Amino acid sequence: MRYPTQIKKKKQTMIHYGNRGMDLEYLINLSNSYYFEQDMALIYKKPTPIGIVDVGYTEKGKVIRQAYFKSPSTLDYNGLYRGKYVEFEAKETKNKTSFPISNIHLHQLEHVKRVLKHDGIVFFLILMNHHTFLLPGEKLLKFLETHQRKSIPYSYLMESGYLVKEKIDPPLDYLDVVDEIYFGGMK
Amino acid sequence: MRYPTQIKKKKQTMIHYGNRGMDLEYLINLSNSYYFEQDMALIYKKPTPIGIVDVGYTEKGKVIRQAYFKSPSTLDYNGLYRGKYVEFEAKETKNKTSFPISNIHLHQLEHVKRVLKHDGIVFFLILMNHHTFLLPGEKLLKFLETHQRKSIPYSYLMESGYLVKEKIDPPLDYLDVVDEIYFGGMK
Repeated sequence: MRYPTQIKKKKQTMIHYGNRGMDLEYLINLSNSYYFEQDMALIYKKPTPIGIVDVGYTEKGKVIRQAYFKSPSTLDYNGLYRGKYVEFEAKETKNKTSFPISNIHLHQLEHVKRVLKHDGIVFFLILMNHHTFLLPGEKLLKFLETHQRKSIPYSYLMESGYLVKEKIDPPLDYLDVVDEIYFGGMK
Repeated sequence: MRYPTQIKKKKQTMIHYGNRGMDLEYLINLSNSYYFEQDMALIYKKPTPIGIVDVGYTEKGKVIRQAYFKSPSTLDYNGLYRGKYVEFEAKETKNKTSFPISNIHLHQLEHVKRVLKHDGIVFFLILMNHHTFLLPGEKLLKFLETHQRKSIPYSYLMESGYLVKEKIDPPLDYLDVVDEIYFGGMK
C-alpha cells in the first residue's frame, strides 16, 4: 500500500473534514485524476452537502460566514464510465477481522437499491488490512439479507469481494475490476 | 408557465446564492422529486463546490465559519435514468431574442464534449420567453462550431431545441423529451 510519509504528516496539520477514509480517498482521487487525464472515465467526488446559514460580502467576493455539514443520502463518488452510470463509496476500517456495517448509513443502503433498480453500477471500496476490496452493491445487499450480523467478516470480503490492484498509476485501479465484473473483462 | 406568486415573493427575502436560474431550478427540483417518488429516475442537483477556510465546533457539532464558492467545472445536475448517465445544466435568460453563450463557462463546454465522448446523455434546459427548451449537448457544440456568434437566436432554439411540456406533475417533464431523443420515444 502506498502511504508516503508526507501524506501522513500533512494530515496532522490540515483540517480534517471526515473522520475516516482520508487515506483511501486520497488514493481514489489520484486514480480518478489519472482516469480523467487518460480520458478513460469521468468520476467525481461529490462535494459534501452543506446548509448555508449566513453569507457575507468582502472585497474578494461572496463568502460563507456560517454553514453546517449535512449528512449525505447518496454515495461519495459518481460519474460516467463506458456509457454507464457509476456510483460508489469509499470506506476504511482499522478493525482487522470485520467491517462494521454501522459505517454505512441506512439511507445509503436504500440508495444502493435504487441505483441497482435503475440499472446503474454501484459498489463499495473497502480498505481493510492494507488491502482494498471492491464489493458490488448487489453482494452487500445479499449479505445483509442473509446474515443477521452487524459486520462483514474479513473472510467474506476475501471470498466475495474483488481485490483492487495497486499500481504506480493509477494507485488503485478499481476500473480494472469494474471491467471484469460489469463488462465481462473486455475493454 | 407556473410561477406562483409565493415563489417570487419568497425569493426576495431568501439569500440568493446564484444570480440566475432560480425559478427554473425550482421547477426542475420539483420535477426531480416527482421522478424520484415515482421511481422513474435518480437525478440530483450537485451541491455547489465550496472551499472551506475555517471550521469550528459548537454544542450542536461542527460548523463552517469561513468558506468560499468555487466555480463549477461540470454541469448542475447529474444522475441515472434507464441505465444511462445523464447530466445537464439549467439556464434562463430575460433576453427575448437570443441566449448569450457567455452564460456557459468554457470549461463546462469542455465537459460536455467529454460526457459525449464517454457516451453519456448531456443537455441544457434553457428557459426563455416563458418556454423551456431542451438543447442536446451535440446540437450546442455543433452550433458553436458552425456559427461565429456569441449568442443562440431564439429561432434556433425553436427549430433545433425540444420544447419541454409543462404539467401539474412534474412541472417540467424533461424526461419525456429525453425518452424521445435518446430512447427512440419508447418507455
